[in-house]
Amino acid sequence: MNSKEEAKDSKFHRKALQVAEAQSRIIEYGKLLQMEKVPLDQSAGRYLAEPVYAPHPFPAFNRSGMDGYALIAADTEEAGEGKWVWLDVVDNIPCGAVPAAEIRRGTAARIMTGAQVPAGADTVVMLEATESREEGGRLQVGIRKPQAAGKNVTPRGYELKEGELVLSAGRMIKAGDIAVLAAFGIPMVNVIRRPKVGIFATGTELLDVHEPLVPGKIRNSNSPMLEALVQECGGEPVMLGSIVDDIEQARSKVQIALESYDVVITTGGVSVGDYDIMGDLIRENSGDMLFNKVTMRPGSVTTAAVREGTLLLALSGNPGACFVGFHLFARPVILQMQGADQPFLPEWTAVLGADYNKVNNYTRFVRARLEIHEGQLYAYPATIDESSVMVTIKDSDCLIVIPPEERGVSAGDSVKVLKLPGEIRG
Amino acid sequence: MNSKEEAKDSKFHRKALQVAEAQSRIIEYGKLLQMEKVPLDQSAGRYLAEPVYAPHPFPAFNRSGMDGYALIAADTEEAGEGKWVWLDVVDNIPCGAVPAAEIRRGTAARIMTGAQVPAGADTVVMLEATESREEGGRLQVGIRKPQAAGKNVTPRGYELKEGELVLSAGRMIKAGDIAVLAAFGIPMVNVIRRPKVGIFATGTELLDVHEPLVPGKIRNSNSPMLEALVQECGGEPVMLGSIVDDIEQARSKVQIALESYDVVITTGGVSVGDYDIMGDLIRENSGDMLFNKVTMRPGSVTTAAVREGTLLLALSGNPGACFVGFHLFARPVILQMQGADQPFLPEWTAVLGADYNKVNNYTRFVRARLEIHEGQLYAYPATIDESSVMVTIKDSDCLIVIPPEERGVSAGDSVKVLKLPGEIRG
Repeated sequence: MNSKEEAKDSKFHRKALQVAEAQSRIIEYGKLLQMEKVPLDQSAGRYLAEPVYAPHPFPAFNRSGMDGYALIAADTEEAGEGKWVWLDVVDNIPCGAVPAAEIRRGTAARIMTGAQVPAGADTVVMLEATESREEGGRLQVGIRKPQAAGKNVTPRGYELKEGELVLSAGRMIKAGDIAVLAAFGIPMVNVIRRPKVGIFATGTELLDVHEPLVPGKIRNSNSPMLEALVQECGGEPVMLGSIVDDIEQARSKVQIALESYDVVITTGGVSVGDYDIMGDLIRENSGDMLFNKVTMRPGSVTTAAVREGTLLLALSGNPGACFVGFHLFARPVILQMQGADQPFLPEWTAVLGADYNKVNNYTRFVRARLEIHEGQLYAYPATIDESSVMVTIKDSDCLIVIPPEERGVSAGDSVKVLKLPGEIRG
Repeated sequence: MNSKEEAKDSKFHRKALQVAEAQSRIIEYGKLLQMEKVPLDQSAGRYLAEPVYAPHPFPAFNRSGMDGYALIAADTEEAGEGKWVWLDVVDNIPCGAVPAAEIRRGTAARIMTGAQVPAGADTVVMLEATESREEGGRLQVGIRKPQAAGKNVTPRGYELKEGELVLSAGRMIKAGDIAVLAAFGIPMVNVIRRPKVGIFATGTELLDVHEPLVPGKIRNSNSPMLEALVQECGGEPVMLGSIVDDIEQARSKVQIALESYDVVITTGGVSVGDYDIMGDLIRENSGDMLFNKVTMRPGSVTTAAVREGTLLLALSGNPGACFVGFHLFARPVILQMQGADQPFLPEWTAVLGADYNKVNNYTRFVRARLEIHEGQLYAYPATIDESSVMVTIKDSDCLIVIPPEERGVSAGDSVKVLKLPGEIRG
């Protein structure tokens, strides 16, 4: 930090924290919310509140993997070299039916794929490998080769034993989990309720998306972006609009929001200018402040405070900084409140795709795009990545972490990246 | 293919297609659906119907990147080595305001971060690098070093020129796109409507998730899984329940579904047993059949037909095969109907994490889990991956493609993987 910045920090009572330290200060306010039951068909994207153990073996019975005949393998020992073994067909077992007869030596049952293998039988011979005939009014099946026991039979409990852990708590429910929950007869799923996240922006310059552009003003793009980001990690955004730079109005809005929602996120009003009201607001209650400076670019002014256990996260008004701040601080809290097992962004290594020369004494989180070539991850930094830049957010699927000690990094260097949510398109 | 399979295929008029050929036969029925307008806050996850061009430069004005003073760089040439340059402060420009005065030689304007830089000024000096004084009733700002033109000013159009392409058609809308749409004043977004996808299962053995388990039966896990998978790729599932193995009922259900929905997906009833009614149903209208066998494992019996331009996709009733069949055939069609720019699963290369020895004369699509170590992708095949297996679906984030010519592949080998939707958790 240069001496000017030190002077500024001292004036505004800022003590810069490392990102990890700032994260650990706020994550403890990401308290687990209550459990609620949701119908299975509305459970996708929610986080499991409790582990799911198999209530019964799966499959629940010895299951035929073929259309054919269930029989006793030992009965076919004599078959082969032109010699057929003929067995009496004593049952016909479609899917969903219960076998009517136990299979004893010399008998077999016609069986469908997926049907329950009858007691006594230890193998299923596929239909195409058999012949059938009527002999003295009795239906018989002919087998021409010796069969191995266990063939085409999926044993009871093959996939899961009774009581086995199937789904851990904290897991995000996807299609494959829904298949499991359906198979085990769980029509209502215990999940953690979605955190309600109050969102507002500050700034006299902000226009709503509906308003025509006028000189000197900009449309508020951060609030809709935050709304989508909150939804993306399972939160329920509550849009509280924008407020002009008026500390009284901000104070009352923050107060009401903190009493009404699980987390409050603001954007704007946290740098050091005359109208930086979020900063002022938090400073006037400094006992509750968790931090108001983080050794990171963009977003060093990111500020967090707590009132009666509820977190207020004041993100920068610069779109790039707001985006990065959300992912480093807001998202982990929102996920942790839902009991998610991976609240932080995954940390990967990648090959840097292009030189990056911005030097800084703070850790940089550079918006970047991942590509995969021959199984190797490459990260391409956005061509313009200033804090204020909005347009490169849409193409970023990771943040390259450039530690302060680096004097620029070169294409081909190994870098740490934080994976942002969503598909890699590269 | 062995001779038994050939005989069976001949009996059921099956001609096996390669996966790519089968995909190309059905993808042409993924016709682009109509455009509709949705509010910006409901547009996440939808696909843009039209490209978005910047309706104005972005930023729309020369924007200050600092709290400080806007001035003419040339005025500061004389500063330095203890000599201060003093300029008259002629304006104070908060965010959102229009500058009241042009800056001429010898003058400056107090300006906020994000505010419009006044005409005439070509640089912004940060507040902390200045002093202020009153001199003969006039407010003045003192500068002690020469300043470079262009510093701390983001020029109009820096991020985007007017008319520049910002978002392509076919893009899935995410938070960063929403920021762009908001910034450009687009409160209603043109997207492609969601395809309605009718889903039903066949099988006498199927219980609903609400029903208690009874001997010989299983709960229908495929329908809820398909419902979630359809939602995951932007479709609107319409659940049509299960039908018992009754061809009359199936015929009427298929008929109504094909008239009512954009795509119809069924699960079960496509192998070659006595009760494989979907197969029978499609064979009785063979003129409409696109294929009823694909050279793949699992899911070789996957069947597709078209009636009056509407696709009927009959997936295997085996959970693993149903899952794979959905991703290879149904998902691309559902995405293509929405105009998505990447309808097929991304194809990556990965290092195989463990030996895989199942040999087959069909291409295998092995459920697997990706991990990233030191920037390198590894794919670990599921320990049990039979067609019938349900429990490993939930942990699969890719399919390893094992071509038929392989005689088993070993850990360390390079393999092709198809990335399934969702985050890599490894």
